[in-house]
Amino acid sequence: MSNTISQVRFTKAAEGIPTVDTWTFTQGPLPELKDGEIAVKMHYLSVDPAMKGWISAKRSYIEPVQLGEIMRGFGVGEVTESRSDYYQVGDFCTGFTGICTHGVYNSRALRKVDASLAPVSSLMGGLGMPGFTAYFGLLDIGKPQEGETVVVSSAAGAVGHVVCQIAKLKGCRVVAIAGGPEKCRYLKEDLGLDAVIDYRSEDINAALKIAAPDGIDVFFDGVGGEILDAVLMQVNRHARLVICGAISQYGDMDKQVGPANYMQLIAQSATMQGFTMRDYMHRAKEAFADLLAWNMAGNVKFNEHILEGIEQFPEAVQMVFKGENHGKLMIKVISDEA
Amino acid sequence: MSNTISQVRFTKAAEGIPTVDTWTFTQGPLPELKDGEIAVKMHYLSVDPAMKGWISAKRSYIEPVQLGEIMRGFGVGEVTESRSDYYQVGDFCTGFTGICTHGVYNSRALRKVDASLAPVSSLMGGLGMPGFTAYFGLLDIGKPQEGETVVVSSAAGAVGHVVCQIAKLKGCRVVAIAGGPEKCRYLKEDLGLDAVIDYRSEDINAALKIAAPDGIDVFFDGVGGEILDAVLMQVNRHARLVICGAISQYGDMDKQVGPANYMQLIAQSATMQGFTMRDYMHRAKEAFADLLAWNMAGNVKFNEHILEGIEQFPEAVQMVFKGENHGKLMIKVISDEA
Repeated sequence: MSNTISQVRFTKAAEGIPTVDTWTFTQGPLPELKDGEIAVKMHYLSVDPAMKGWISAKRSYIEPVQLGEIMRGFGVGEVTESRSDYYQVGDFCTGFTGICTHGVYNSRALRKVDASLAPVSSLMGGLGMPGFTAYFGLLDIGKPQEGETVVVSSAAGAVGHVVCQIAKLKGCRVVAIAGGPEKCRYLKEDLGLDAVIDYRSEDINAALKIAAPDGIDVFFDGVGGEILDAVLMQVNRHARLVICGAISQYGDMDKQVGPANYMQLIAQSATMQGFTMRDYMHRAKEAFADLLAWNMAGNVKFNEHILEGIEQFPEAVQMVFKGENHGKLMIKVISDEA
Repeated sequence: MSNTISQVRFTKAAEGIPTVDTWTFTQGPLPELKDGEIAVKMHYLSVDPAMKGWISAKRSYIEPVQLGEIMRGFGVGEVTESRSDYYQVGDFCTGFTGICTHGVYNSRALRKVDASLAPVSSLMGGLGMPGFTAYFGLLDIGKPQEGETVVVSSAAGAVGHVVCQIAKLKGCRVVAIAGGPEKCRYLKEDLGLDAVIDYRSEDINAALKIAAPDGIDVFFDGVGGEILDAVLMQVNRHARLVICGAISQYGDMDKQVGPANYMQLIAQSATMQGFTMRDYMHRAKEAFADLLAWNMAGNVKFNEHILEGIEQFPEAVQMVFKGENHGKLMIKVISDEA
């Protein structure tokens, strides 16, 4: 194993979407371990829309990353050295590892995982935060009932494609909104959803009327903007709008627009509720067990978009904001890269 | 009793706030009663912000009033003639009477009321729809807990002043937002609320930081716009935003703006929920009993703004949208006017 490690640091504030100039790569030796620490060699690093928020000074649920710090991020890796009774060399662990090839952590800062249950990449996707977000957001907040119509934006994304499949499992009519023919083909053919709308080529309002003829009961939204406004005009009474993100509004933090049609919440006695996974971390095992079982039964498939090499990180962040990823975007850390 | 009756008809669509040109007064004889009908002489007519929605073709919870029809509105009046077994001459009744001095109704279309319990004007205000709206919106959706901070917009309005007083009764810190020194004086001195913000002369963001030092747990909103955006930036985790109206957005239906800061719902796991009284009509008696008891005990006072004569109606509608009413705006129908 190389003794040199690479890290991606946040070194330049970005007004809008982060660019290649936002980041600086640094190298150095692996620090020596203190008692209770472990050294971890990363296998996969997660690339998330939330990263924009993490490097923004705007009030949020978590402290922003400071200039010069290693970029915050989820990773999964293998223990290469341990001074913790709880970890053996060869164990796998996950958590906020930061964007790096290797790191040294207090063993309590990460969570040990059983790498024999599923490919470890799924811990960044369907069996990790995106999957849990889909699970609790849809089931706990959206509360879909059999026969109801569930609309999902960013439907081919990391969270969305899991939401769509859980909603199908629960007996709902599922309408997926995504951008571009390849994503729409995947949603229609591979996932077998009831209706798919390509927001890039279709008029959302008209398409929704056809795709959701009985109105919309649950909306799982990671996009905001025009799609949210269009959905609001077609929600049913007592509809639940689950607000998980607003990727259309992440570009310029000073020019954000809210849903102009939010007054439909009044007319339809509807609810718009936001959440983050911190509300549900204490129930993560429940989501993990169900998602693993559904995945093994073939009912919920995890779509992963894997780039190779940590040097892809700046480009990967841009892909997420341009919607160029198909499924959960992650980086496979090349075994011998430093 | 005069045999001639007056009605206000909706005869010209209004782009923004209704003007004097929106309405036409008509006169005519009182129709003859059929079996099951009653003739009612109005005492009070309610003037409501919802009227803008009722004459708008935009999708809503209720069919719009058609051009030429008598304007929809709540009234309370006295039965002057009855061909219904359920009503005696001299009984009082309330409901969607329309804006008129007298009318003939199917007896089942209105609700009989006991005029001995409280002044009948209160059936248009604190013991009617505005009071019930305050009661269920705050208690059922806002769910304020003792010690929490409740912020109320349009706080001196028909619904708002009742919300403020119920929230005080429940042991909350109550922050009232209103426009102009006279309303603010009323809220501070007459109602004894914890803090009052004059949105016309104060910077809302700065004033809220001082008025709600522990953040905002419940927001009861009838205004929208900048006030909603300011509150969103200061909500606590799991805050509840009760959306009862958006009077700032009623002017030009094509230029409505939503809350740009709605993404705070995600960061704070907060809920924004709309409602109308139709969700709660089956529980109206519960609200009536509590509000009457609180009013008789002096804990919840009803503030009524009474104009005299149905000819005031066009001006009254404009007053509501300019925020010129103090408390519940209503028209007292002069006994001998036709």
